[in-house]
Amino acid sequence: KIANDPLASECLPEIEAQLAPLRAAVKECGDLIRDLKAKGAPKIDIDKAIVELKARKRRLEETEIALAPKEASFDRLKLEDLLKRRFFYDQSFAIYGGVTGLYDFGPMGCSLKANMLQEWRKHFILEEGMLEVDCTSLTPESVLKASGHVDRFADWMVKDVKTGECFRADLLIKNSIEKLMNDKKVSAEVKKDGEDVLACLEGFDDKDMHEVITRFKFKSPITGNDLTEPIAFNLMFPTQIGPTGDFKAFLRPETAQGIFVNFKRLLEFNQGKLPFAAAQIGLGFRNEISPRQGLIHVREFTMCEIEHFVDPEDKSFSKFAKIADQKLVLLSACDQLDGTPAREVAIGEAVANKTVANETLGYYMARCHQFLMKIGIDGRRLRFRQHLSNEMAHYAQDCWDAEILTSYGWIECVGNADKACYDLQQHFKAVNEKLNPRKMIDIYLMEAEANMALLGKSFKKDSKKIQTALQKLSSEQVSVVEWELRTKNVYNLDIKGENYALTPDLLNIKKYSKKMYKTDVIPAVIKSAYDVGRILYSVLEHSFRQREGDEQRTFLAFKPLVAPIKCSILPISANETLVPVMEAVKEELARYELSYKVDDSSGTIGRRYARTDEIGIPFDFSESDSQKFRIVN
Amino acid sequence: KIANDPLASECLPEIEAQLAPLRAAVKECGDLIRDLKAKGAPKIDIDKAIVELKARKRRLEETEIALAPKEASFDRLKLEDLLKRRFFYDQSFAIYGGVTGLYDFGPMGCSLKANMLQEWRKHFILEEGMLEVDCTSLTPESVLKASGHVDRFADWMVKDVKTGECFRADLLIKNSIEKLMNDKKVSAEVKKDGEDVLACLEGFDDKDMHEVITRFKFKSPITGNDLTEPIAFNLMFPTQIGPTGDFKAFLRPETAQGIFVNFKRLLEFNQGKLPFAAAQIGLGFRNEISPRQGLIHVREFTMCEIEHFVDPEDKSFSKFAKIADQKLVLLSACDQLDGTPAREVAIGEAVANKTVANETLGYYMARCHQFLMKIGIDGRRLRFRQHLSNEMAHYAQDCWDAEILTSYGWIECVGNADKACYDLQQHFKAVNEKLNPRKMIDIYLMEAEANMALLGKSFKKDSKKIQTALQKLSSEQVSVVEWELRTKNVYNLDIKGENYALTPDLLNIKKYSKKMYKTDVIPAVIKSAYDVGRILYSVLEHSFRQREGDEQRTFLAFKPLVAPIKCSILPISANETLVPVMEAVKEELARYELSYKVDDSSGTIGRRYARTDEIGIPFDFSESDSQKFRIVN
Repeated sequence: KIANDPLASECLPEIEAQLAPLRAAVKECGDLIRDLKAKGAPKIDIDKAIVELKARKRRLEETEIALAPKEASFDRLKLEDLLKRRFFYDQSFAIYGGVTGLYDFGPMGCSLKANMLQEWRKHFILEEGMLEVDCTSLTPESVLKASGHVDRFADWMVKDVKTGECFRADLLIKNSIEKLMNDKKVSAEVKKDGEDVLACLEGFDDKDMHEVITRFKFKSPITGNDLTEPIAFNLMFPTQIGPTGDFKAFLRPETAQGIFVNFKRLLEFNQGKLPFAAAQIGLGFRNEISPRQGLIHVREFTMCEIEHFVDPEDKSFSKFAKIADQKLVLLSACDQLDGTPAREVAIGEAVANKTVANETLGYYMARCHQFLMKIGIDGRRLRFRQHLSNEMAHYAQDCWDAEILTSYGWIECVGNADKACYDLQQHFKAVNEKLNPRKMIDIYLMEAEANMALLGKSFKKDSKKIQTALQKLSSEQVSVVEWELRTKNVYNLDIKGENYALTPDLLNIKKYSKKMYKTDVIPAVIKSAYDVGRILYSVLEHSFRQREGDEQRTFLAFKPLVAPIKCSILPISANETLVPVMEAVKEELARYELSYKVDDSSGTIGRRYARTDEIGIPFDFSESDSQKFRIVN
Repeated sequence: KIANDPLASECLPEIEAQLAPLRAAVKECGDLIRDLKAKGAPKIDIDKAIVELKARKRRLEETEIALAPKEASFDRLKLEDLLKRRFFYDQSFAIYGGVTGLYDFGPMGCSLKANMLQEWRKHFILEEGMLEVDCTSLTPESVLKASGHVDRFADWMVKDVKTGECFRADLLIKNSIEKLMNDKKVSAEVKKDGEDVLACLEGFDDKDMHEVITRFKFKSPITGNDLTEPIAFNLMFPTQIGPTGDFKAFLRPETAQGIFVNFKRLLEFNQGKLPFAAAQIGLGFRNEISPRQGLIHVREFTMCEIEHFVDPEDKSFSKFAKIADQKLVLLSACDQLDGTPAREVAIGEAVANKTVANETLGYYMARCHQFLMKIGIDGRRLRFRQHLSNEMAHYAQDCWDAEILTSYGWIECVGNADKACYDLQQHFKAVNEKLNPRKMIDIYLMEAEANMALLGKSFKKDSKKIQTALQKLSSEQVSVVEWELRTKNVYNLDIKGENYALTPDLLNIKKYSKKMYKTDVIPAVIKSAYDVGRILYSVLEHSFRQREGDEQRTFLAFKPLVAPIKCSILPISANETLVPVMEAVKEELARYELSYKVDDSSGTIGRRYARTDEIGIPFDFSESDSQKFRIVN
């Protein structure tokens, strides 16, 4: 009953035949990029090739999705109708006309979300012994200055000089050039120029964009009026704390910074030891210029975020062996350049052959996969895509997004990244403080133990003095003693100018190891960030079914773990003597924390079952058999 | 071991003797107010008496608290030290110097809070079948304009004209007048004037305050500079949505508005029927001018809020009988005027004698009491205080705050209020829409059934026509038929001008009742709002203990239900063979969702037990007996 199966489709030779030329086109471009990089070609040439690669990749992916066999036709309008009608979620402030990018969750969506969050807390925080924090959304400017958000978390915007209408500068340039390209009156030379601009657009700053807008004489696409110079529009919501108006603050754009600024306290809580993981579940805010696609691009959202702090020299993970055999669908950077499809690989193998950078990152990817399966994501519509080197921040080492296939295409839902030491260093630089975590290491120690019986015979009353002197030797000095004894068969011990020639039989060299702490390690951060709204929407799409033979009848098939309501209570008659029985059932269900919904409306039992199925209630009670229950879906 | 017991203290005659004059002073003032009101005295005189009443009440309350027998001395500094050291919570952004009124919860506080919220969700949303919503914090100006927050959720502020320093205008006037009062050089006349100002201060607007500041020549208490005119400082955090800058918005000051704007959808979800309750757990934001007292006055906080929508003509509650015998400590408005202490009353009795306005309000108070007991509030330090009529909004009918006694005095932690129809009406007026809930009522119906056998004999072929005519009669018309038959023994039925004289034997009057809906009821709202931070802090104070005979050794005695960590794992030896055993224990605990903390540090087992007690872990495992566990506290 699933809508499409991207993996299965690749097994069909007739489909693969149609995809082959598209794959070849991607590979051609990927090889060119590798070649350009190897030759040390100018950045502009490489950037141009990457733009082309992306376009070819998109064409390949769209065709893959279009050709995938569909077992049931998926109708987004029908799903949206159900979600709105049964109040899973809906646009906020709708009675006031609504606000784009803001959504309110109703009883069904709220419960689904709460169940997902509770499972997340159990799966990660509890099972992995993470340190949870709950920090404020209000964040002073200084903190977000240090993290780079004040300067860089922005889009360039141009305004219509007369109406003040706003446009995202890069989108305006892109759309305007694409219009030029299709204009027959425009010369080949100008088109060539436009093509060069498109290739470099991603790397443009405000001056570059202003130069292009002026040179091409681009105007407002709506009024034809002139445009202002590009203005940086920061995507954070600004506010002020306190009455004076001069304490600038923002709503946090991500939950990570709250963890970083509390790093020292958390380290202390963990008795100063690395590694440890901290987690936060909470709100994030982004003032998107054009929110779209329902829960996919919103202005206020719930995130679950893990920051795992680890010794940069040792990113092994103690429990890695437990998940090493787990298979994930991986789309590596290399495969993306080659145009080859994603492949199913055991995470242990992927780490061993360096496809995935290290065990800790691999462990979080495997756990991420487990979590998404538990809550009802279809494994055939889930892949981990590696970032190409130009997609990552300069300091990041390796990034793998969990992408889920929905009717909007592949959507980035979880970011898993080895971010090296950057974030923490920024804050500690800003406040001029030192980091001081310590890591446990094995230290090898040596001791020289006197053989008192033989020593007494040779040195009489001096033997006590010799014993004390030997005890005082450091491990390094003892290693010298060992060396001398082995090579020269004697060690000349000097005590206040007097020499004692010790032969191997007079002392015993003992070796042992001891666990010690090494301090002042700057921890690397491995991050895992979950966009709850996007995952929730994906669960809804993957759970949505249309009754075979009756496509008007739609329903949701949730896993019981996340189902908003666990049981449906359907009284068949309105007999008053059954009221206390029903009350007892309700109380019993509440005691076991099982949510329920009573449907005592006048519809037929069949119609009421259909209503129950529509919102994915997995179990039901009808009063005639209040001792038993049956599985509906 | 509890710090004070305000109820027990009232039983001791020697303490009661000391309180008696203070009680009499309150009563004197309360009687004066009643008298003034009865006489219809000028508002200024009543307001002045109320200010005096409040001062006398405060004096009485402070003495009550001071005289209460203390079984253990409570040291707030010791508690705060523990909370900071073990990272329950701490000031946000401390490495950047900190922000007043913002707090971050560490692993212990976070878990305590999550456990409280989970229990709240179970106790209210699940057990009472409430409709939960999760709405955005970002709220457009228009919505908060309708709710009255844009115009009225503000404090008047004056600024130092040179430095720009801000002062709350009413506090500045109060402090300045109190300074005058203590100044021997000030004339009795001026002092009398000041006294009058103090009495009316609560009702002052900006012009009144400006007049006072000018008349008394008040200056900045810090620099002696002149002050600006009072400026309204709105306590909401302002921001804008989208790039243009002209879509004004605020962070919500309470979670209630999200419920009100979704009222129609929720009503629909409830199949159009009243009563129903909606609930929301989420953030609220208030830009306090001077945050203080730790978690008591903060700028960002978590709330749990219930809005119970009910027919204004029928506020009975179906499950009220279940809790009617439950005893609560009530401090009614009347007792406050009389200076008498709070009394323990069964809620059923309080509703019956109209102390508490109605069953629904009473039910929520009782459930509130149960919840607070479950999570570890000391029942002897909990009371429900009724608002005096001048404390309530003009539209509210009855308000009872759950107040908890802490070292800061009695703190308002939960507001329970019958708010009538105000909030909903405001939004529906603003958007020009109609409310249309319906309530179920019993309708009595009557039918006139023809006795066809006898009718055939008397009227032959017309009998069919007569039967049809009888069937068409409305209930009201049938009641006329019944009346005629009973009084005149005949009913003259007219069919198109022809008369049929029907005798009682020819027809049967049937009576029955049917459940129907009455539409267009404007629902009243009964509200219950929980301040999670204040309750959490109260739980911490009430759980705090100092070891008898060793007051340096402090610990927390949490109820297992809310304890941040349920089990402590204390390996006694570092024997490596025990590692897999420990791993198995950890896995088993996680499976049952029991949080744990491993303390494998090098301290003695006694020291480690102390550390475990300090953070209130109720159970522990030591590896030697991993099959059993013992209760620590």
